[in-house]
Order: sequence, then C-alpha cells, then structure tokens
Amino acid sequence: MTENEFDYISWIQKQLKRSPDVLIGSGDDAAVVKTGKNKYIVVTTDTIVEDIDFKIAQATPESIGYKSIAVSLSDIAAMGQGKPPLYALITVAFPKRINTISFRHRLFKGMHQLSRKYNVSIIGGDISSTKGPLVITSTIFAHKYLPILTRAGAKAGDVIMVTGQLGGSLSGKHLSFSPRINESLYLNGRYKINSMIDISDGLCADIGHICSKSKVGARLLESLIPVTQSAIKISCKTGKSPIQQALYDGEDFELLFTAKPSETSCIIKNGKVKVYPIGFITKEQGIWLHRTNGSLKYLKPAGYKHF
Amino acid sequence: MTENEFDYISWIQKQLKRSPDVLIGSGDDAAVVKTGKNKYIVVTTDTIVEDIDFKIAQATPESIGYKSIAVSLSDIAAMGQGKPPLYALITVAFPKRINTISFRHRLFKGMHQLSRKYNVSIIGGDISSTKGPLVITSTIFAHKYLPILTRAGAKAGDVIMVTGQLGGSLSGKHLSFSPRINESLYLNGRYKINSMIDISDGLCADIGHICSKSKVGARLLESLIPVTQSAIKISCKTGKSPIQQALYDGEDFELLFTAKPSETSCIIKNGKVKVYPIGFITKEQGIWLHRTNGSLKYLKPAGYKHF
Repeated sequence: MTENEFDYISWIQKQLKRSPDVLIGSGDDAAVVKTGKNKYIVVTTDTIVEDIDFKIAQATPESIGYKSIAVSLSDIAAMGQGKPPLYALITVAFPKRINTISFRHRLFKGMHQLSRKYNVSIIGGDISSTKGPLVITSTIFAHKYLPILTRAGAKAGDVIMVTGQLGGSLSGKHLSFSPRINESLYLNGRYKINSMIDISDGLCADIGHICSKSKVGARLLESLIPVTQSAIKISCKTGKSPIQQALYDGEDFELLFTAKPSETSCIIKNGKVKVYPIGFITKEQGIWLHRTNGSLKYLKPAGYKHF
Repeated sequence: MTENEFDYISWIQKQLKRSPDVLIGSGDDAAVVKTGKNKYIVVTTDTIVEDIDFKIAQATPESIGYKSIAVSLSDIAAMGQGKPPLYALITVAFPKRINTISFRHRLFKGMHQLSRKYNVSIIGGDISSTKGPLVITSTIFAHKYLPILTRAGAKAGDVIMVTGQLGGSLSGKHLSFSPRINESLYLNGRYKINSMIDISDGLCADIGHICSKSKVGARLLESLIPVTQSAIKISCKTGKSPIQQALYDGEDFELLFTAKPSETSCIIKNGKVKVYPIGFITKEQGIWLHRTNGSLKYLKPAGYKHF
C-alpha cells in the first residue's frame, strides 16, 4: 500500500469533524471561518523548504523571504480575496551555516517588501534553529469581502482561463512572481467566477483539483495554452516540449479559473486583467488535451508530489 | 557585532508599522487583532524542529504530533484565552527516512487527540518534504472572550505565581504536558491577573520577559520554587542543583503570572487551580533570588537561545 501526500490529506480530512462555523476547511487554497454575523476570515498557511522550494545558491535571501510570503498571498488570491487589511505570522528555522546577521536581515527585508505592497501586517512568528535546511512557514489571513471562490464551483460549459503564461517557473519566476491579489479582486468584484485555484502543482494537476472537487472534466486546447519564454528555453535542455513544461511544471502561481462563456466574453473585452482562455469544462470527467494536430490526448492529472 | 534571536526579533519589531486594528503584535505569546466591533481574534504560531525540540528516538510519533499542537495552545492560554471554538492550521515537512504511512497517521493521531480535547478544529495546512529534520508548525487562533493578559501588566508588589512544578521537562513532560487552557480560563474569568506568560524559555528567562515588558524587577524565593522529581533526578547527572534546573530548564509550559497580594490570597484560598506563589514584583529592575541560606543572588535572565 502506498499513500502520496494527496492520499494523506484525504485520509486526514476523513478523520476531521467539520464544525458548523467552518465554512471551508481543509481541501481548498485557504480555509474560511465565521467570526460573527456575516463576518468571515480567510486563512492559509504554506511552508517553503530549502532544496525543495528554493536553493540557497540560486536565490538571494531577499527573494527567499519574498517567496515565503508570496506563496500564501497567492492562496488568498485563489479564494477571490485579499482586500486589506491582511495579517501574517511567520516562522523560520535557521540552519547555523547561513545564520548570519546579514542573511537574517535580508531575508526579513524580502518578506517586508511584499507585505508592505499588499498591506499585510506582520503580527507575530517564531524563530527557531535547525540542523537541516532552512524552513519558513507563513500563515496569512484576511477578512472576506467578496464571494468566496473555491475549487468546487466549475460547471459544464465554463471557459477555463489563466492569468499568465505557464511553464519554466523554476528558471526564476518562482522567486519573484506577483501574487495575483489585485487581479483576483478585480475579477471577483465585477464578474461571476465559478471556480478558482492558483497554479502551484502545475496546470494539469491543478485543473485536476478543480475537476475532482467540481465533479466535472476539462478539455484543454494546446493552441491556446500560453507558454513562457522560460518554458521554451528549458524544453531544449529537458527534451520535453514547451507545452509539456506548461502542463506539468509547478509554481507558476497564476490564477486558474472558470466562468460561463458570456461572462468570459465580458472579462476578455474589458481587458483590464490579462487573461488567456485555454479550454472548457465538460460534464464527462477526465482531462483531455485537444492537440494542435487535431488529435485528442488523455492527460493524467500529474504534477509535483512531495511523496 | 552579534545578534541573538531576541535581538533579531527586536530589530524586526522596529521595522514594523503597527496598524490600528492590531491590538497586540509581535512580542507577546500571541497576537490580537480586531475583527469587528468588540470582536478580536487571538492568534499564535509555533514551530518544532527534530533534534532541537524532540528526538525521534525518544518520542513516539503521537507525542510529536501532540507537542506540535500543545505548544501553540500553551501560547493561547498565556494570553488568558482558549474558550472554544479554536482553529488550527498545521504544516509538516517530512524527511524521507521516517515518512511511512504508519508514522504519518500516528503523528496526526497525536495532533487530533489534543485538538479534540480542547475543541480545536483543524481547518487546513500544508504537507511538504525535506532533506533534513522533521519540522512541524502549528498556527492556532481563538476568539477573545476574556480580558487579554500580556507580559506587560506586572506591577510592583504583585505576587508571582506558577501553575506547576518546574525543571527537568526534557525527561518527558515536554512531550506530554497539558496546555494550561482550563487553568487560564478559570483564573482569568474570576480574578484580576496583571500579567501572564507560559514558561517555554525557562522560569528565569520568562520572568525576565515579564519584567522587561512591564519595566519592573522580580524577587524569587528559592524556598518557594516548586521543583519536579525529574529536576531532582537530572541534577544528579548534570551537577547543577535542582533549583538551577527549575530556573533555567525550558519547556515547562506552566503559566507564570502575577496578581496583587489580595487577589493572590483569593486564588490560593479558592484552591480550584493549584498555584504556587514564588516571589514578588519590585519597582527596581533586575531579577534576584532570595536563597534559602538568606543570601541574595542576582540572576541573569538566561534561558534557551536558538542563536
């Protein structure tokens, strides 16, 4: 018997009893808890680990601090939220080998730069040491101001959209991406979005999360999937095609969302937020790629797995 | 120039601008944020790291999971809070070497056992992998129901109390202690407590935190400090006296708090919560030990430092 991280999370979810004040619990990008009459907070936590999520040799201390906050902000955006005020708690386990004053201060500066930009108050944390890799956990919460967007609302006929080009994020974007808070607030404030997630595991895995939670399928159109220059460059080295990089690379941190076609037309016509339609939702489950050559290819919802 | 973890935290605090909705920010056991009219949430985060906070060989997976939640619950208790509902988010970075189904499930069972006991809903988290030690971060939040107790309210003349015997926690108590939620709610609900902290760094360091935040000093009475059997046993091996173990060992996770003498008499007379008076607060700064032999000894506010 094997159990990967997603099986483990499902097993955990089965053990948990949902309390009535928990609107959204484990299983989406963030949790939503009722705190008063018509008052909810949206809260998420994310860990980044040296040698898994970044490499010290390829990242500045500032960029590591930046990423530690950006990953959680991206989760808040994926719920259609992020209007200030936001609040963050941060824990860091420092390995001795890099635990210099300069490193620590530069790490914090990266966190602080992004926090200020999105009006996130850093209100607490925990500083620790470790004999292993640097580990940073950020927890961010915000008030709910707009409708909560989840992975579960996609409907057959919905158009699937992304907010940016995909693939090759490990060349650098994963350390410097802009969490799509403003894009999410703009879209969610003006249009009826049916489902949303941020792409962290990879396009194919993350559309898989939407499909399994919404009990639908998806058709992706190869010709429409926007591919980054980095994905094209990397594909020369990896031997994979650029489209494979776009489908399976993780850490794009773009929003992946669905809306009905009439709504989609308005979003695209408006043009205020750059979005790319890349496919549509089907009643039949399973994820298929309409290839440029006319053939149909079944996609396994694979992506990065920790175990 | 050197900078320990407390200097680093102070430096960070100087960079932060306190927003008016943050009642208590970084610098106490938990943060307090306003979420509505007369509505506040109390939130804390804590990381435990293998080989620093526990050793795999000396702990069951259940006890590691238990501790990961208990440390944050102890912080909530230290603010005088903890009335259900409470909410937790948990992140785990698993090393391959121990990442078996059995380990993962038993780890979660330890978390879940304690969560159920204190009505903590586990609402989310993040599962990750690491090439180094096991790292677990828990973030717990609760509504404020009672007055917020901080490190900053101690007044000259206050009696200093603790909720249990001290020292030698590393012999086992640190993996199985009861977070003093019920004791805190009982005391805070019925009496006027002036300041409170949980003992994680050690009695001497933690009374130091109260003194520096309250701008007061403390006198501890050696004859009154309650010492655990473990501290006595360990002292044979370490060559330190049992009282030194009680003063400097970390991880007792008892509540350390102060109240004026008349209030203290009522608390002791009531007897519902076992408390030990161990000294008193002075106007003059500095922490002194009244030794059993009649001498006075100046105590450096030392305790466990990560760096």
